[in-house]
Amino acid sequence: MNHDPDLWRELGQQLRVDSIRCSSAAGSGHPTSSMSAADLMAVLVTKYLHYDFDRPENPNNDHLIFSKGHASPLLYSIYKAAGAVTDEELMTFRREGSRLQGHPTPLLPWVDVATGSLGQGLPIGVGVALAGKRLDRLPYRVWALTGDSEMAEGSMWEAFEHAAKAELDNLTAIIDVNRLGQTGETMHGWDIDYYAGRLRSCGWNAIEIDGHDVEEIDRALSQAIATTGRPTAVVARTVKGKGVESVANKNGMHGKPLPNPEEAIAELGGIRNIHVEVPKPEGTGEPHRFEVGELRLPTYERGSLEATRKAYGDALAALGSARGQVVALDGEVSNSTYAEIFAKAHPDRYFEMYIAEQQLAAAAVGLQVRGWYPFASTFAAFWSRAYDFVRMAAISRADMTLVGSHAGVSIGEDGPSQMALEDIASLRAVHGSTVLYPSDPNQTAQLIAQLPDRKGIVFVRTTREKTPVIYEPGDEFPIGGSRVVRQTDSDQVTLVGAGITLHEAMKAADTLAAEGIRARVIDLYSVKPIDEEGLRAAGRATGHILTVEDHWPEGGIGEAVLSVFADTDDPPRIAKLAVRELPGSATPEQQLAAAGIDAEHIADAARRLAGELIGVGGGQEGRK
Amino acid sequence: MNHDPDLWRELGQQLRVDSIRCSSAAGSGHPTSSMSAADLMAVLVTKYLHYDFDRPENPNNDHLIFSKGHASPLLYSIYKAAGAVTDEELMTFRREGSRLQGHPTPLLPWVDVATGSLGQGLPIGVGVALAGKRLDRLPYRVWALTGDSEMAEGSMWEAFEHAAKAELDNLTAIIDVNRLGQTGETMHGWDIDYYAGRLRSCGWNAIEIDGHDVEEIDRALSQAIATTGRPTAVVARTVKGKGVESVANKNGMHGKPLPNPEEAIAELGGIRNIHVEVPKPEGTGEPHRFEVGELRLPTYERGSLEATRKAYGDALAALGSARGQVVALDGEVSNSTYAEIFAKAHPDRYFEMYIAEQQLAAAAVGLQVRGWYPFASTFAAFWSRAYDFVRMAAISRADMTLVGSHAGVSIGEDGPSQMALEDIASLRAVHGSTVLYPSDPNQTAQLIAQLPDRKGIVFVRTTREKTPVIYEPGDEFPIGGSRVVRQTDSDQVTLVGAGITLHEAMKAADTLAAEGIRARVIDLYSVKPIDEEGLRAAGRATGHILTVEDHWPEGGIGEAVLSVFADTDDPPRIAKLAVRELPGSATPEQQLAAAGIDAEHIADAARRLAGELIGVGGGQEGRK
Repeated sequence: MNHDPDLWRELGQQLRVDSIRCSSAAGSGHPTSSMSAADLMAVLVTKYLHYDFDRPENPNNDHLIFSKGHASPLLYSIYKAAGAVTDEELMTFRREGSRLQGHPTPLLPWVDVATGSLGQGLPIGVGVALAGKRLDRLPYRVWALTGDSEMAEGSMWEAFEHAAKAELDNLTAIIDVNRLGQTGETMHGWDIDYYAGRLRSCGWNAIEIDGHDVEEIDRALSQAIATTGRPTAVVARTVKGKGVESVANKNGMHGKPLPNPEEAIAELGGIRNIHVEVPKPEGTGEPHRFEVGELRLPTYERGSLEATRKAYGDALAALGSARGQVVALDGEVSNSTYAEIFAKAHPDRYFEMYIAEQQLAAAAVGLQVRGWYPFASTFAAFWSRAYDFVRMAAISRADMTLVGSHAGVSIGEDGPSQMALEDIASLRAVHGSTVLYPSDPNQTAQLIAQLPDRKGIVFVRTTREKTPVIYEPGDEFPIGGSRVVRQTDSDQVTLVGAGITLHEAMKAADTLAAEGIRARVIDLYSVKPIDEEGLRAAGRATGHILTVEDHWPEGGIGEAVLSVFADTDDPPRIAKLAVRELPGSATPEQQLAAAGIDAEHIADAARRLAGELIGVGGGQEGRK
Repeated sequence: MNHDPDLWRELGQQLRVDSIRCSSAAGSGHPTSSMSAADLMAVLVTKYLHYDFDRPENPNNDHLIFSKGHASPLLYSIYKAAGAVTDEELMTFRREGSRLQGHPTPLLPWVDVATGSLGQGLPIGVGVALAGKRLDRLPYRVWALTGDSEMAEGSMWEAFEHAAKAELDNLTAIIDVNRLGQTGETMHGWDIDYYAGRLRSCGWNAIEIDGHDVEEIDRALSQAIATTGRPTAVVARTVKGKGVESVANKNGMHGKPLPNPEEAIAELGGIRNIHVEVPKPEGTGEPHRFEVGELRLPTYERGSLEATRKAYGDALAALGSARGQVVALDGEVSNSTYAEIFAKAHPDRYFEMYIAEQQLAAAAVGLQVRGWYPFASTFAAFWSRAYDFVRMAAISRADMTLVGSHAGVSIGEDGPSQMALEDIASLRAVHGSTVLYPSDPNQTAQLIAQLPDRKGIVFVRTTREKTPVIYEPGDEFPIGGSRVVRQTDSDQVTLVGAGITLHEAMKAADTLAAEGIRARVIDLYSVKPIDEEGLRAAGRATGHILTVEDHWPEGGIGEAVLSVFADTDDPPRIAKLAVRELPGSATPEQQLAAAGIDAEHIADAARRLAGELIGVGGGQEGRK
């Protein structure tokens, strides 16, 4: 922890030079956005950041998150100065196959999360800081470098509010107020008083400085680590492109390599090769672990009624008693999602995120950075509020589960604003995601128990209404499987449902059976990955598949099933029932009927399909 | 404008009683959340709101937006008091077929937008207020009733920041701080100083009052209309369930009818039938109209290179010169989306929304409330940030266009954080949406020109890279159509692409032609609605379709095409190429190759499909 202003200044210049060099070599990138924050980072990494680059898995490491991910040249230049990457690797910036991508991703072992969508790094940092305080119970610190443009994102203010409420004095935001955005001046230019005022009104300690005065930076960071009971923001007035006159504080230079890099490098004093000894963590503590016992999942009696959302809460509480790394978060609707059952059982591991779904998702990402397994819940419709965070979480290779209750028109009277009808489509279209839609409480419990071992983003869609228990406790439901719940050896049509529509399909099958039409019924509880083999077998056997979903027709169960049969020989005829008109208020039964996805409409559609079968002819197995 | 405290108090009680009555009749709803704001609204609607219930289309009407949409019983009780709905209709609350849904929607002529997803009404109100100031240039006012729970949504703070920046003194936020959320106390309980402090730090005039003291309410609203140069927030300390002791300020009473409605009504002094004369608008002005001339769309020479994003900017500027109601907004990336061309041509009709995509979407919704036609643009990936706003905009029956540039892996070096790969899936799954993905600059211009007459939410996906101009200026491209760009009378396979992949498909067709394999190529520029007839004709003619998209495999072009052939006789064999692995940084060409969607991979897949054709046999037209 040396006080070495000359080193800081020299290192700042080196970071600028290297940012210019690598972006010029790449022919793209954001050198000017890197140059504004170079002095801030020079002081931070030589004196305040505690990080063992040889052991990124050290639980006592601090966390440095570039919320302004486009300043990646600066981050990578720091890695070079720290000896973590070579100058040669630095020059691979933005090339195919390089770990040094245009925006940081956890392909680099020292990067916690992907950034590049502005306004996400700080909210995720709140999650990491919460893990430090409440779960790991270790004194590591979280440092988030943010831009001033991203201060316009509401998600930042969710983060500022939550961090103050949680008294996260282990979190420091370093705000690089370089005045210029991509197209021109930000809303507040160099008015750092404005930012500091808003931060103070949220309960933060805000320190206003000249972001190029290394002594001021040093004092501010020193004050940040000395401040207890509240987080600190260093609000730094900086110059975009600082140090190179032709670009400094000039509009029109965002996201472009410097026009004359050689001259610029000369102006900055030439190439340096300072090696920085980043301070190692002082702590040697081990993360706190919660005591656990055996897994005793809840059980539900076959034939009784229970909602899958309630089974989620029961199962999660049970899972928490068996798996210490399981934690839960909710967006102030825990008495609807039933996360409250976990909250009561495991208050130390429950995080109330209030009506702030972006921070809800971001905190979950932050908690999993430290190895905790988060289950985050709200109404399924409101996950749409955090869709960008979920998209980015996939790029962060995050492992976590999002639970959405109150899916579909079957919620009834509350009306369309509360109905998720696009959630399956949007969550299927997240890279590497798993989409589950359980139909039964015992099944819900079995699925939930598998999730802490699952890679990637998992979305679980639960149902508001109580539905019949159709499976035995202990029945197994592998992710990627499906379950045939009605079958004869001469089925004429397959009905595919999940969640609420499975029960309607089962009722329809009963009606059809009474008419002599034999319908197979498949519970497609795993929408992604989907049981290709099971569906193909049903397609071969019956020649006709009818999908039924409480969701818009686009991107949901119907299209997932259609994709199974893309590019295959002799696909079955596939028809889909889905919600096509905008619903209003009505009872759940009325809603299902109005949407054309209740038992009666399913039976009608199945009769028509069975008629097609007879009319069309063609030797499908199903006719035998 | 009478000062009549007794009337206000009595009306407040009536609004409470009616909120209890209608929610009790419905068996669900939010009476306690209505009761807290009843006095605030009683004073507002008798003295300050200027609204002609007989002429909701009167351009001089004020706008009352219930950002806390769950207080719908209060809103509908106001409508009853104003004589707009009968007591009989009030009692249909939440029943099937009633206009009085669980949360307000514009099925009611006095409701501008659907609310019920918290944190949206105020940001939309900012849009309406912007229209009043900058477009209509009329003195109407916007009143937004917000809850305290929704103050945790970041979108609220985007709105507060923007309203102050735009000096919207025609906007008043009435913040109903009733302390209790759905599950317990909010983050700040009754700390109205906290809220007022944060609002003042944003530049708002904040007035703290007792929300049940009608004289204080009157003074605050009077001060709000007298304040110029900045918006005013009335921060009102209120009691949830006010007036009924058994529920007042009690947790656990959110979203539930009162347990003993008869007793509660008696405690409130019984049923009243006060009729309120809501003041009529004083102004009689007509909305400002912008001068326009003839439409002169830009033209591009066949064979030259241009990006569709650039054509978007050119076409939008031209459209603005011909259609006065066209306005544009952008999220601080207008030099990437090329909205800057419109901004330079029509600065009066351009709105810079900075890096705040939720406010960007919300402002567009607000502008279209007043009949303006908004084109809102940002990177396609960042529309995911506003997905809940787009979902709700569809419920609001909003007419507007969202433009997303930089779609897909073909953006190149910036990496996955900037690549939209889920936008087609998520935007297709918006009720009533249109999804366009132009492949050519002349086509882009033709499509853009049609949009101000289009109902619903339109999403236009544009491409970063320059692509060849393949169409003549003036060629027509109806929405819902497609275009065959390569065809012989004996095609063996159909290649379906759009945007960047169309050009790869055309190159592949050339390669295949040299090998004697005849490929039809279809430009699927209209992904939703989709050209069912054209695709079916191609399917019949060639028996094999290969879709190629710069998007994840879920919910995109491939699944849209599969859906066309669902439940049809003799569907073609359909194979799809899409992005399946998480990309990194690389050149556009490398990205397309790595994702398996470039010309070479298309040709390979087409060869295999053509082989299947020969191998499988079966008399498809394509073999002749």
